[in-house]
Amino acid sequence: MADKKYQRLFEIAKQTHTLHGIQQLLDWDQETFMPEGAAHFRAEQLKVLSGIIHKQRTGKKFAAALSQVVDLASGKPIAELNELQQAAVKEWRRDYLIEKALPQKFVEEFTFLTSTSMNVWREARQENNFKKFLPFLEKIIQKVRKKADLIGYKEHPYDALLDLFEPGVPTSLVTQVFNGLKAVNGRLLKKIAPIQTDDSFLFDDYPKETQLSFSKEILTAMGYDFHHGRLDLSTHPFSTSFHPTDSRITTRIQENNIFSCLATVLHEGGHSLYEMGLPQEHYGSPLGEAVSLGIHESQSRWWETRIGLSRPFWKYLLPKLKQIAPSTTFQEVDFETFYKAINKVEPSFIRVEADEVTYPLHVILRFELEKALVEGSLKVKEVPEAWNHKMEELLGICPKTDTEGCLQDVHWSMGAIGYFPTYALGNIYAAQFFNAFAKEFPTWESRVEQGELLFIKDWLQRNIFCHGRRWRSIELIERVSGQSFSEKDYASYLEDKYLALYPT
Amino acid sequence: MADKKYQRLFEIAKQTHTLHGIQQLLDWDQETFMPEGAAHFRAEQLKVLSGIIHKQRTGKKFAAALSQVVDLASGKPIAELNELQQAAVKEWRRDYLIEKALPQKFVEEFTFLTSTSMNVWREARQENNFKKFLPFLEKIIQKVRKKADLIGYKEHPYDALLDLFEPGVPTSLVTQVFNGLKAVNGRLLKKIAPIQTDDSFLFDDYPKETQLSFSKEILTAMGYDFHHGRLDLSTHPFSTSFHPTDSRITTRIQENNIFSCLATVLHEGGHSLYEMGLPQEHYGSPLGEAVSLGIHESQSRWWETRIGLSRPFWKYLLPKLKQIAPSTTFQEVDFETFYKAINKVEPSFIRVEADEVTYPLHVILRFELEKALVEGSLKVKEVPEAWNHKMEELLGICPKTDTEGCLQDVHWSMGAIGYFPTYALGNIYAAQFFNAFAKEFPTWESRVEQGELLFIKDWLQRNIFCHGRRWRSIELIERVSGQSFSEKDYASYLEDKYLALYPT
Repeated sequence: MADKKYQRLFEIAKQTHTLHGIQQLLDWDQETFMPEGAAHFRAEQLKVLSGIIHKQRTGKKFAAALSQVVDLASGKPIAELNELQQAAVKEWRRDYLIEKALPQKFVEEFTFLTSTSMNVWREARQENNFKKFLPFLEKIIQKVRKKADLIGYKEHPYDALLDLFEPGVPTSLVTQVFNGLKAVNGRLLKKIAPIQTDDSFLFDDYPKETQLSFSKEILTAMGYDFHHGRLDLSTHPFSTSFHPTDSRITTRIQENNIFSCLATVLHEGGHSLYEMGLPQEHYGSPLGEAVSLGIHESQSRWWETRIGLSRPFWKYLLPKLKQIAPSTTFQEVDFETFYKAINKVEPSFIRVEADEVTYPLHVILRFELEKALVEGSLKVKEVPEAWNHKMEELLGICPKTDTEGCLQDVHWSMGAIGYFPTYALGNIYAAQFFNAFAKEFPTWESRVEQGELLFIKDWLQRNIFCHGRRWRSIELIERVSGQSFSEKDYASYLEDKYLALYPT
Repeated sequence: MADKKYQRLFEIAKQTHTLHGIQQLLDWDQETFMPEGAAHFRAEQLKVLSGIIHKQRTGKKFAAALSQVVDLASGKPIAELNELQQAAVKEWRRDYLIEKALPQKFVEEFTFLTSTSMNVWREARQENNFKKFLPFLEKIIQKVRKKADLIGYKEHPYDALLDLFEPGVPTSLVTQVFNGLKAVNGRLLKKIAPIQTDDSFLFDDYPKETQLSFSKEILTAMGYDFHHGRLDLSTHPFSTSFHPTDSRITTRIQENNIFSCLATVLHEGGHSLYEMGLPQEHYGSPLGEAVSLGIHESQSRWWETRIGLSRPFWKYLLPKLKQIAPSTTFQEVDFETFYKAINKVEPSFIRVEADEVTYPLHVILRFELEKALVEGSLKVKEVPEAWNHKMEELLGICPKTDTEGCLQDVHWSMGAIGYFPTYALGNIYAAQFFNAFAKEFPTWESRVEQGELLFIKDWLQRNIFCHGRRWRSIELIERVSGQSFSEKDYASYLEDKYLALYPT
C-alpha cells in the first residue's frame, strides 16, 4: 500500500522531470545548432514549457500524492517507506516547499528582470560601464533578498540562497572553510607567485579537427560513452543531460590553445560522467539526481585538475600529444618543464582562466561580496571599489577596468546569488573524495601512467553516482571519506603539489 | 467582445501549438544529432509531450473557448467574427472534432500498434518477407477502418482517412483526376519508355563538403534564409518547422550522386520556404498553418521539378556545376545532352527514385490498393499479388521481390493510410499554380536563366504562404489560378515537356 503511494508520487514526478529534460534540450539546441534568428521564439517556447513544469511541481496533483507519504508541515513520514524511499521523499518535500514558497507572480517578475539584466550586463561588460548595470543589480539584490525571506532561513538570509544550489550547507560553514583556505592559499601564493615560469611553448596552433579528435580520445579513455553522449562546439562550454542515456557536452576551440580545449573537455566530461552514472531506475526521483552543484563541480574539477593536471596523466598523454604537435619546440620539451608549465601559478583577473592556487580566492572574493550585499552591509554601488580592494588583498593585483573586474561573470545578472561558493566547494569535496580513492588505489598513479582511467570512473560510480540525492553533500563526504567536511585535504594537496613544484 | 473571445481561444491554441513545435524539435534532434543510445528515452519524452498536447487539444479549456465563438454541433458562428477569424474557427472546429472523435484509448492502441509495426516492417523489408508484416498490416487496416467509422464520412470510408491529410478533398474527386492522369501518363510512357537515354556521366564523385556548399548556394538563391534555418544530414531527408523563424531541412549524401542531393535540397527547401513564409502573427491559429499535405507537396515539387528540372534553371547552374565537377567528361557535356539526362524517363520499381512521368503512377497504384483494402474488396494477404499486377498494368514492369514491391514504403506500417494521394495531388496543384505564375511572369525563364529566383518565392509568398489555412486546397487553387481543380494543366505540362524531349 505504502509502496503504491510511493509509486504514484514517483510517476507524477517522473512526468514533470521528463518535461524538464525537454527544456534542457531546448537550451542545448539554443547554444549549439539553433539558427540565430530563432532566439526570440525559443524564449517563448521555454516560457510555455517552464510554466507547465512549475504548475506541475506546485500543483494539487503532486501535492496530494506527496501528502500521502509525508506530512508536509512537519516532514514526518506518513506511509511506511523504506530507507531509500524516505530519502527521496525528504528531498521531494524540500523541493516542493521551495517552489511553493515563491508565488507565480514573483517567479515571473524575477525571470523577466534577469533576462533583461543579462542583456544589459552584456552591454555593460563590453562598454566597461558598471553604472549601466548598477540599477539592474540593485533590483536583483532586492529581489534575492525578498526570495530569501519568502523561502525562510535560520541564521543569515544568504543561507536561503546558498541552499538553492547546495542544500543543507549553511553560510557559517562555508565562511569557516573559506577562511581556512584563504589563509593557506594566500601564504602559498606569496611564496610561489614571484617565481617565473615559461609556458610559451604550450601555445602551438592545432587545427580544430585535431583538437576535437584528441578530445574525443581522452573522453573515451575516461569512460565517456559516445553512444549516450556528444561533443559539440558552443560559445560557452557546458554540459547538459536529459537522461542518463543522453548526456551531452560542448567545448570551444582556440587554435593556439589546445590545453584550454582539453581542460574544458575534462571538466565538462566530468560533469557528464556523473549524469550518465545516475541510476536510471530512479530517473524522475531525487534518487536519480545529482546531489548539488558543489558535488557536481567536484566531478568536473576531479577530472580537470586532480587527473588532468597530474603527473601520471601526462606521462601517458604527452607522448601522444607530441605525435600530433605541429612544432619541434613542443616535441622536444622535457616532461618536467612541460608539467611545470601546465601547472603555472600566476595571479590573474579572470576567474575562469585561474590556476588551481588562485581559483578558490576568486570564488571567496565573490562569496564575501555577495554575503555583504545580501545582508546590506555593502551597497551595490560600492561593488567595484570593494571588488578591487579584495582583489588586491587576496591576489595582490588590481584590475584596471570593471570588465576584467566585477563585470566579468554572468551569474549576478542571472540572479544566481549563492552559486559561486559551489565552485570552491567542488574543489574541497574533490580533495576529500580523492584521498578516499587514493587510499583504495594506492597504485593509481602507475595505472593512470599506463593510460588506464576506467577504474577511476568505476570508483566514482560506486561511491558517488549511484546514490543520487540519497545523502546531502556533507553526509556524502563523511560516508565516502570517513572524515568530516573540511578544507584540510584540499589545502594539503595544494601545498604538497605546489611547494614541490616551486621549491623556495 | 467577440474579439476578446477570439483572442482567448487563440492564446490557448497558441500554447498548445508551441508545445507541438517542441515535439517537432525532439523529432528533428532524433533524426540528426541525438546519440543512438538515447532512442528509448526519446520515445518516453515524446509520449509525455504528445499526451499533454492531446489533452490540451481535447480538454475543457479549449472546448469552452471554442464554444464561445462557434456552435460545435452545427458549425454556426456564435460570436461576431470577421472573415479571417471565421476561417480560423472553421478549421479549429474541424481539428477539434477529429481529435475528440478518437478516444484516448484508441489513440494509444493505435500508437502502440504502429510503433511495433514499423519495426516489424523494417525487418520484413530487409528479409523480403511479406508474411512477417502481414498480421500487422491486417491489424492496421482494421484499425484505420475503425478510425474512419469514428471520424465519420459521407460516401466512402477512405474519405475520412484522406481528409486527415487533405481536408475537404473527397475520394471520388481524387479517383476522377487520377483516372485522367493514368490515361495520359500511361500513353506518354508507352511512347517514350522504349527510347534509351545515357545519363552515366551524371554520376561523378563529389566530396560531401562540395555537395553541401553547392546545396547551400542553391538554397540561398531560392530565398531560403539560413538566419532562420539549417541544412543537416540525416538517413531520411526531411523538413521540419517549429515556427516561421526556425525551419530546418536535412539531406543525405551519396558521393557518386550529387543530383540526388540537389533534388532533395530543392524538395525540402520548397517545403521549408512554405513554413518560413507562414504569417507569424497567426502562429498558433490555423491561419498560421499550411493548408494540407498536398499543398505542401506542391511547394516541394515546384522547386524540385518545375524549377529544378527546368531548362532555364540549368542554363544558369550548369556552368557553375562544371566549375566544381571532378571529371572532364562532365565538364565537356553539352547542355541538351545534360538536360535530357536529368530528365530521363524509365519505369522503375522504387517510388522515391521515379521520374516525373512515372511518379504519379506509383502513387495511383498505392491509392487504388488502399481504397480497396479499406472498403474490403481487397484482402491484405492479396496485396503482393495485387501490387505486382498493377505495377505491370501501370508501368509495364513487375518487381521480383516484395522488398522492391509492396514492402518499399514506411507509410502503411505508420498507419498513414490516405497519405499517398497527397504526393500526386501536390504535382497537380503545382501545375495549376505554375500556370498562374507563368501568366504573371511570362518572361520567368529568362530571369531564372540569369540566376534570379527570389521573384518566384515572392509570388508564392503573396499567393499561397500568406494565407495559411484560410482556404482549403480546392478553393485556394481556384482563387490562385482562376480555374477549377483538374489534372489537365499537369498532364499538358508533362506531355509538352516530354514529347518535345523525346520526339517519336
